[in-house]
Amino acid sequence: MLECEACRGQYEPDQNIQLCECGEPLRLEYFHGDIKEGKRDVWSRYSEFFPFEVDEKLNLGEGNTPLLKAPSISKKLDANLYLKNETVNPTWSFKDRGTVLSLHRALNLGIKNLGTVSTGNMAASVSAYGKRNEIQTIVLVPSNISNKKVEQISTYDPILIKVTGDYGDLYYESLKIGKNEIYFTNSNSPFRIEGYKSIAFEIYEEKFPDYVMIPTSSGGLFRGLTKGFKELKRSGIIDEIPTLISVQAEGCSPVCEAYQSNEKEIKRWSEPDTVARAISNPYPPGGNDVLRKLEEHGGICEKVPDKDILKAQNEIAREGIFCQPSSAVGIAALKNLRRKDKIEEGVDVVSIITGAGIKGEIVLDDERAIFHCGLEDLETCLTRFF
Amino acid sequence: MLECEACRGQYEPDQNIQLCECGEPLRLEYFHGDIKEGKRDVWSRYSEFFPFEVDEKLNLGEGNTPLLKAPSISKKLDANLYLKNETVNPTWSFKDRGTVLSLHRALNLGIKNLGTVSTGNMAASVSAYGKRNEIQTIVLVPSNISNKKVEQISTYDPILIKVTGDYGDLYYESLKIGKNEIYFTNSNSPFRIEGYKSIAFEIYEEKFPDYVMIPTSSGGLFRGLTKGFKELKRSGIIDEIPTLISVQAEGCSPVCEAYQSNEKEIKRWSEPDTVARAISNPYPPGGNDVLRKLEEHGGICEKVPDKDILKAQNEIAREGIFCQPSSAVGIAALKNLRRKDKIEEGVDVVSIITGAGIKGEIVLDDERAIFHCGLEDLETCLTRFF
Repeated sequence: MLECEACRGQYEPDQNIQLCECGEPLRLEYFHGDIKEGKRDVWSRYSEFFPFEVDEKLNLGEGNTPLLKAPSISKKLDANLYLKNETVNPTWSFKDRGTVLSLHRALNLGIKNLGTVSTGNMAASVSAYGKRNEIQTIVLVPSNISNKKVEQISTYDPILIKVTGDYGDLYYESLKIGKNEIYFTNSNSPFRIEGYKSIAFEIYEEKFPDYVMIPTSSGGLFRGLTKGFKELKRSGIIDEIPTLISVQAEGCSPVCEAYQSNEKEIKRWSEPDTVARAISNPYPPGGNDVLRKLEEHGGICEKVPDKDILKAQNEIAREGIFCQPSSAVGIAALKNLRRKDKIEEGVDVVSIITGAGIKGEIVLDDERAIFHCGLEDLETCLTRFF
Repeated sequence: MLECEACRGQYEPDQNIQLCECGEPLRLEYFHGDIKEGKRDVWSRYSEFFPFEVDEKLNLGEGNTPLLKAPSISKKLDANLYLKNETVNPTWSFKDRGTVLSLHRALNLGIKNLGTVSTGNMAASVSAYGKRNEIQTIVLVPSNISNKKVEQISTYDPILIKVTGDYGDLYYESLKIGKNEIYFTNSNSPFRIEGYKSIAFEIYEEKFPDYVMIPTSSGGLFRGLTKGFKELKRSGIIDEIPTLISVQAEGCSPVCEAYQSNEKEIKRWSEPDTVARAISNPYPPGGNDVLRKLEEHGGICEKVPDKDILKAQNEIAREGIFCQPSSAVGIAALKNLRRKDKIEEGVDVVSIITGAGIKGEIVLDDERAIFHCGLEDLETCLTRFF
């Protein structure tokens, strides 16, 4: 059953409906279950929590990502920080977890075309899974997209369409038009959310934390993690869900803005301006639902400026993971929250590292010394370092 | 015990020696053991085959990579092709498996500096593991290295030294100089080889094939896989090792050249010229040992031209994996070998996909159609596709 958390509207699961008539994104019912010990594959291990059995043939080996301690940052902050490294998914972002369930959903509905509205991680992910499985894949991008981005998406050979007009409206328009012919798996698709739940399950098994830092743009990742933890609680596996912290970039933070002003609805952000481009959705379709979840669970919304984001990106690289700026917001926010003592000393924190830095650029936080020497002087040259 | 497969020289394992006095790279003794079922972590699961227990704290979650069927290519070639996706390692190449064992080795020897001679995957890998573990890391690069490469390595904040002079000689020079102060883990370091063995163990557990295609540059990956399969055989786990195929780019193929001319030693390739830069070592230090292994096991050496490599890179992307050109040589070679009927119909083949394509560039194999439409015409625009 598809349900709306805003107006409680319900829809039969055999319809391709992703948005409620009230305009809010739908979600599937809450599942209960047990974790199947002994199964390694993420979709088998947590199969009781998914709406259908996931066909192994459609997969690319997504999920089962490492949770890594971050010793240096932990020490500086007097907290135990763990990084959930989603950069080692098949197309190097967490989107793959949602894409595979979306693809299943499309096939279950008998729809033979897969679509998405995205310029980045999700476009690459949907194109890869679609092409591999010989499903025609249509990616709608804004007409001013950079050539570099087009190239990264084109690698997987989808049908790429540049659309002029308001890119925010395209999200809604695509869902209307696609209905019976193209299954658009946009950021808040209910089945995409189901895929993201698996991150919560893995975190529970690796290191159950006090806080989870979640980079928030459209709201899909936040909604997925919340649903995952709630299902663990409803299944009697955990007693309480961790405190979920939604993190946005200061240059595009409609959710934090609304939450901090006690609004029930987000307002469209007029001009997104941040280095964290992967989380710069000015009018996130899941934004209102994130507000509801934050309120329901006593969550926190924190926004961080670009300079803190870039600094955090460099600090995460020193822990061994080169991530996108948007993935670094969690650490930037954690630093702020510890400084303001809004998060207490000694707690366990997981931050989701959503996507790989090699997809874009890094701005180095200080000048790196580069040395020069001749092969004939190498020994003398090296002695200065030990 | 460290042993030389060329002259049978032996060295005590407490010395930092990587090359035999005869000039050939050393290897550790062959290990025997059982696979520990139930352990997920690669170093615990195969612990009986490694020279020491691997400290979990030093890891970044390398290994346990997916083995993916490649349905489209398989169909075209009348063979069952599987891709071992090493692009989902922490720094997005197989090098990570060797780096973690090298780091352990350095610490076991009481050496506090880690070094490498590399411009690409290995430089990034060693820098990431070194920095994370607060080990001073020194990367020697040629003075004409591109700024883009410097940037990718600098992300992990190592000491970067540009060295003028013959880059091939630098390999040997660094090992001499580093001895007691810097543990240089270059491409054929014996402990690096130990790490690469784990790929053979994983392949055995997932799908034991008739053939394994191995992109070959310095020879380290080939030597690691051979040692891994031999240890499985010596442990009574498998009866025969699969046929190992060393693949090089036509523009730099000293191993194939020597093997096809029945030479016992490789000759320095005068001017490497290939898009597969990650495998363009003109004078591979493990080259002679690869020749010996090919002869011993009846292996094949196959070289492929750039145009076939780029075509294969595109075909692999259509299976869902965007890899480096150097990772695509296995598929290009498989196509040749099937065409010449040197590999029979219906066999099971694993090709090692060594590193991620987003680190570099892709040359698209044909023009990708990019369409344009306005939001107001989106519906009409989309109908042409279904």
